[in-house]
Amino acid sequence: MKIPSKHIENAVDQMASLPGIGRRTALRLVLQLMNRSNEEVLAFSDSFVEMKEHVKQCKTCGNVSDKELCSICLNPRRDHQLICIVEDVRDVLAIESTDTYKGVYHVLGGIISPMDGVGPSDLSIPNLIQRVEEGQISEVIFALSATMEGDTTNFFIYKKLKQFNIIISSIARGVAIGSELQYADEVTLSRSLLNRQPFIV
Amino acid sequence: MKIPSKHIENAVDQMASLPGIGRRTALRLVLQLMNRSNEEVLAFSDSFVEMKEHVKQCKTCGNVSDKELCSICLNPRRDHQLICIVEDVRDVLAIESTDTYKGVYHVLGGIISPMDGVGPSDLSIPNLIQRVEEGQISEVIFALSATMEGDTTNFFIYKKLKQFNIIISSIARGVAIGSELQYADEVTLSRSLLNRQPFIV
Repeated sequence: MKIPSKHIENAVDQMASLPGIGRRTALRLVLQLMNRSNEEVLAFSDSFVEMKEHVKQCKTCGNVSDKELCSICLNPRRDHQLICIVEDVRDVLAIESTDTYKGVYHVLGGIISPMDGVGPSDLSIPNLIQRVEEGQISEVIFALSATMEGDTTNFFIYKKLKQFNIIISSIARGVAIGSELQYADEVTLSRSLLNRQPFIV
Repeated sequence: MKIPSKHIENAVDQMASLPGIGRRTALRLVLQLMNRSNEEVLAFSDSFVEMKEHVKQCKTCGNVSDKELCSICLNPRRDHQLICIVEDVRDVLAIESTDTYKGVYHVLGGIISPMDGVGPSDLSIPNLIQRVEEGQISEVIFALSATMEGDTTNFFIYKKLKQFNIIISSIARGVAIGSELQYADEVTLSRSLLNRQPFIV
C-alpha cells in the first residue's frame, strides 16, 4: 500500500513502531487523527512528551511515579519487610487492583531471556540484592511469569538471595477460579494437585 | 486498574481515544513509549503534529495530499472523465494498490448513517455534483460498502446524478477469488449467480 504523503508515511511508521500495531492498523489510527482538530492532535502528541518529561522510575522499587519515590514505597502503612518481585509496572497495577497485597514491590523491568538478548545485567537485580542487604526484609515473593524465562530468572535471583536469612516464596499456581477443570493444561492441573490446600469450611 | 501517575493516566486516555484501542492496550503502548529515549518520544509525538500541519485534503477529490491537489488529480495520464466514489482515503489506497484503475476518485469522507448521526450534509456530495456539472465526466462508479448505509448513500447520490448524461455503475459483487463457494453467504452467492458473466477462454 503506497501512502501518497511522506508526512502520513512518517506518522504511520511511528504508530506502527508500537508493539502489536501493524501498518494497516497504524494507517487507520493515523487517518483518524487527521480528522481531528489541530488542538486535539496537539493534546494527543503533548501527552506523551509530557509523560516522558515528568514520570520517573521510583528509586527504590522501579515502579513509575511522579516523584523520586513511588506512592507505594512512601506509604508508611505498607509492610516494607515484604517484597513482591514482578516483571513489569503492569504487574504492579494488576496486583494492586486486587486490594489484597500490603507489602511493597520490586520491578525487574523484564526477565532473563537470552533469545531476546536480555541478560541479568539488564534487569534491576543488583538493586534488589542491595534492598535485601540493607533493609529489614523478612520475605521475598516471586511473581514472575510461569515460563522458562520466568523460572530462569527466579532461579538466578534465588541463588543470590539464599545466603540471606529471609523467606523466599512464590505465588500459587493452579487452576484459575471460575475456569473449568477440563480446559486446564496438564502442567497447571498436576501442579494444583501436588500443591493441594487444606479444605476450609 | 488505578494508574499511579496523572501524566501516564493522561497519556493512556489519549491513546485509548484512538478507535479500537482499549485502556489495557493503551497502557501497554504508553509504558512501551516510557521505555524509549526522550528523542524517540519526541519524534513519535512530532510526527502527528507535523502530519496535521502539512497534510491537506485535495480540493477536487478529498484524498489526502501534501499539496492543494492530490497526485492522482494532478496526473495527466489518469482518465479524468471516470470518477470512482469511495468512502475513505483507505479505499483509495486499496484500489490504487491493485494497479488496475486509471480514473480519478471522489472521497465522500463517510457514508450516510443516521444511527451515527451522519447525514448527506456531512459528506462531500455537493462537491461531487459540482464536478459532474462542470467537468466532462463520462462515468461514475460506486465503490461504497455493500451495507444498508452504503446502499442508502448510493441511492441518494444516484438520485442527484441521474439527470446528467453519464453512465452510473457499481463495482461487481460476487464470490471472492480464492474463497470457497460453500462459505460464501447467501446474498453474495445469489448476486453472483444473477450477475453471471460470459465465460472467456
